[in-house]
Amino acid sequence: MSNNLYPKALVQLIQHLKALPGIGQKTAERLAIDIVSWPEEQTTSLAKLLDVLKTSIKHCCVCGNYSEGEKCSICQDKSRDEKTICVVEQPSQIAVIEKSSFYRGLYHVLGGKIKPLDDIGPEELTLDSLLSRAESPELKEVILATSSDVEGEATASYIAEELKKCDIKITRLATGLPVGADISYTDISTLTNALSRRYEY
Amino acid sequence: MSNNLYPKALVQLIQHLKALPGIGQKTAERLAIDIVSWPEEQTTSLAKLLDVLKTSIKHCCVCGNYSEGEKCSICQDKSRDEKTICVVEQPSQIAVIEKSSFYRGLYHVLGGKIKPLDDIGPEELTLDSLLSRAESPELKEVILATSSDVEGEATASYIAEELKKCDIKITRLATGLPVGADISYTDISTLTNALSRRYEY
Repeated sequence: MSNNLYPKALVQLIQHLKALPGIGQKTAERLAIDIVSWPEEQTTSLAKLLDVLKTSIKHCCVCGNYSEGEKCSICQDKSRDEKTICVVEQPSQIAVIEKSSFYRGLYHVLGGKIKPLDDIGPEELTLDSLLSRAESPELKEVILATSSDVEGEATASYIAEELKKCDIKITRLATGLPVGADISYTDISTLTNALSRRYEY
Repeated sequence: MSNNLYPKALVQLIQHLKALPGIGQKTAERLAIDIVSWPEEQTTSLAKLLDVLKTSIKHCCVCGNYSEGEKCSICQDKSRDEKTICVVEQPSQIAVIEKSSFYRGLYHVLGGKIKPLDDIGPEELTLDSLLSRAESPELKEVILATSSDVEGEATASYIAEELKKCDIKITRLATGLPVGADISYTDISTLTNALSRRYEY
């Protein structure tokens, strides 16, 4: 109903914004109306950016991270510890780990996780290049940092199995209570997991 | 810190999205990463849309509503009641009123409200064209539907004063408790207002 009131271009803009995660009809309308009030330079500069987005954001030929050139900034950085590779699902997850400043090793982006229901098998992931990277004599450890949901766990255990041939340590991110969590509001699976993996104090 | 990890184009996209209302750094990152994963047709179609946005969304020459041609769909609609004009601040507010399907008259967009602190005086608003529309012999009522905040009230009373010369009914939207409100959580000004404007049952 309300869409009939808006000019066609505004309706199309709302449709585009609704494709974004967590943006419903109301928020999309609010954002679109705000964009309409932007100065023309701002909309055309965003338009130009979107036009070149796909060509200007490449993926690192080594690890699959976002990159402007052939290799990403992390793979080019000589100060990084080449003895460890942290395996993640998506390039955006590298930024999350980097924010903690704890990890100083390299990364490997799988490009997803094994999801049989969505027809995503191991061959859809960048496993071959991970296996060839794992053959490097310098590598000592592969950290499997896939999500702690069912598909993430399945993907981790599949990769762990594949990497067994190589003589390297294979580790998985710890699971348990999040820091600062109140036990009263913790879900049963997290609590069961935290109990079964309890450690001596 | 995290921005150094992203390619330049992604950082710029995040900056653009942060300009939107209610979108902070984290949400902007999430949205930008989603846009990067869009198929190329979708990003280029959005880019094209943004390029023509300013030229394809016009404002109605009569009321100031969003419009594709000279006159908006409401001003062109012969079934609308020409005896009433509802005065709003922004074109987007017309859609909100239209959603209720209660009002069948015409509109007038002021283009803002009087805000002395931001140097917006009555001459910045479309008051002249409202006054000339008010001279039409067919017009019987002007509804002042500006916001119920301080600036909205000031704007409404200023317009009411200006319209006094014309022989028409001038009304203001009712103020009071929102429908479904719990009195326990109502703010003092709304409650005072609802008490002072109480009506006989």
